[in-house]
Amino acid sequence: MPQGILTTLSQSDEGGYNYDYATVPFLAEVFKVPFSSSSSRYAQPISPCISYLASQCSFAVQLIISGLFLWRETRTSSLATAKITTDWRSVRLFVIPSIIYLIHNNVQFATLTYVDTSTYQIMGNLKIVTTAILFRLFLKRKLSNLQWMAIGLLAVGTTTSQVKGCGEASCDSLFTAPIQGYLLGILSAALSALAGIYTEFLMKRNNDSLYWQNLQLYTFGSLFNVARLIADDFRLGFEKGPWWQRIFDGYSITTWLVVLNLGSTGLLVSWLMKYADNIVKVYSTSMAMLLTMVASIYLFSFKPTVQLFLGIIICIMSLHMYFAPPQTLVDLPVTNEAHPKTLKQIIVEEKTDT
Amino acid sequence: MPQGILTTLSQSDEGGYNYDYATVPFLAEVFKVPFSSSSSRYAQPISPCISYLASQCSFAVQLIISGLFLWRETRTSSLATAKITTDWRSVRLFVIPSIIYLIHNNVQFATLTYVDTSTYQIMGNLKIVTTAILFRLFLKRKLSNLQWMAIGLLAVGTTTSQVKGCGEASCDSLFTAPIQGYLLGILSAALSALAGIYTEFLMKRNNDSLYWQNLQLYTFGSLFNVARLIADDFRLGFEKGPWWQRIFDGYSITTWLVVLNLGSTGLLVSWLMKYADNIVKVYSTSMAMLLTMVASIYLFSFKPTVQLFLGIIICIMSLHMYFAPPQTLVDLPVTNEAHPKTLKQIIVEEKTDT
Repeated sequence: MPQGILTTLSQSDEGGYNYDYATVPFLAEVFKVPFSSSSSRYAQPISPCISYLASQCSFAVQLIISGLFLWRETRTSSLATAKITTDWRSVRLFVIPSIIYLIHNNVQFATLTYVDTSTYQIMGNLKIVTTAILFRLFLKRKLSNLQWMAIGLLAVGTTTSQVKGCGEASCDSLFTAPIQGYLLGILSAALSALAGIYTEFLMKRNNDSLYWQNLQLYTFGSLFNVARLIADDFRLGFEKGPWWQRIFDGYSITTWLVVLNLGSTGLLVSWLMKYADNIVKVYSTSMAMLLTMVASIYLFSFKPTVQLFLGIIICIMSLHMYFAPPQTLVDLPVTNEAHPKTLKQIIVEEKTDT
Repeated sequence: MPQGILTTLSQSDEGGYNYDYATVPFLAEVFKVPFSSSSSRYAQPISPCISYLASQCSFAVQLIISGLFLWRETRTSSLATAKITTDWRSVRLFVIPSIIYLIHNNVQFATLTYVDTSTYQIMGNLKIVTTAILFRLFLKRKLSNLQWMAIGLLAVGTTTSQVKGCGEASCDSLFTAPIQGYLLGILSAALSALAGIYTEFLMKRNNDSLYWQNLQLYTFGSLFNVARLIADDFRLGFEKGPWWQRIFDGYSITTWLVVLNLGSTGLLVSWLMKYADNIVKVYSTSMAMLLTMVASIYLFSFKPTVQLFLGIIICIMSLHMYFAPPQTLVDLPVTNEAHPKTLKQIIVEEKTDT
């Protein structure tokens, strides 16, 4: 995602230290995540969550954009094309993604108390596999064996690109975390996938306008986020003032770009969920991550690694395996089977000696 | 190959330093390669060649074993099954692999003057791809797109497993060698593949006994090797005595095991070339390398790396992609195409709300 690039740009103002670009997510760093609200052991510089204040801004951006698009849609077209279901039995379903994300956030925090950020990042690639599994189970989409292998390869490819190179910080802690850490990591990947799969189900279950669906999704998201901000304010005894007074603290132009980017990414993802699917999203996210890593080499003079190069090859092959029409992959005549007799005949025909 | 394990075993007598198991080949170290014969810049502890003296032993082992088998074959069966072509027009073809290996050896040395051993090892995986290309061009074997991708993945997988982990020696020199180094590396991979492809052609071009073919192959190999040993002796002015007086210098039981292993590997490869093919050989070599790396973790307490784990997954997937019957990989109903409309219909059928 260009997110990573924006974030690194905003950091270079602060002294330009050689930020380890492979350690996602950068956002916490930019937004100066107010971890003080959690227990001190969570107070790490890098976290899987972006600041709740920044989230609130990006929710606002998405609500405004979705609202504007919906308003334009209802004005320019008949209500038949811009369908809006306001039945509570339908609307209430949109609260579920917010609940899943709430649980997911807490599982993420718990995971990080057991594993270091490198291991956490590596385990994040499990999400690709869990998404495919839930895609199969809940959306009843069948995948061919080749497509399952492609999914596995995508996860392997993104992981490969993230392997720490020689000369980078030591990673002795890999494979050495307590078992709870790995179990929580798997749970986290499953919850993240569940949220995606459920959102796809929500977006596709009827012909409602995309913008109306977005409005419902982000309204609930925003409400949950406000509840969290208020709870944090109460826990801290309002020592920094209520959240709405702090929401624009320390914003630079780059920070605004990050918020706008988050907002537009959200809309893009909703669009993908409605008109494509979770697997397409998983591929586009992975490819964007690799593109960001390549762009970082040029923009920030990061050193290219063999593993990034290998990861890109693996992911491109996976993409081709998943999306290419099967007959273009395997249309081979029968004689091409590994069968020495047949081959021998071919050679015998061609030989000139003896 | 178990070769690696034997070699490491023989090293542990010498003080048991933590040998970098990913840096193949070990053999030079065991056999105390007499590099003094080459220019001093080749005098590195790790080289792509095993000692010419040790080669001579292993040629002898292979000649003796092949001779015994051939003798048993001609005694127990009719000459019709143990076919022996002694026509010079056929025999002379067996000199070509030795010539190719002679050129290849010199190209290997030249490559190592431009690139470091890490880069050299990484480039060695190119051999997988060049073998497939020459397999297609010279043996006229067609591969499906999926099989080409499998070949590419195998090369990527073995490379991944060899990527230096964090904490290991610095690899700043990667991607920074002069262009000649990379060109020579590609030439080296092409020559190595050519030798394999030509040997497959030789073994399959007629129904001669495998052991008779082996005898011819190793007789020429042995003659070329003796020529090299004599040339070296003359260049050094016989200061260490002629080669046949030094052939068993410094041999331990493990060294003998290495020689026997080399000899039996040679016979196994000939068998593969006659009854299977070069691609099967490439897969078995790669899998053996990964197995050796895993065994080294247990035998020598090497630290397991993420990249080894990833490399194994990639290679197993590649194996399945190459050898599994295509219809088991892609037998998917038409509705499984990525097509939102169809999916939407499925979901509409299943939904219970609204």
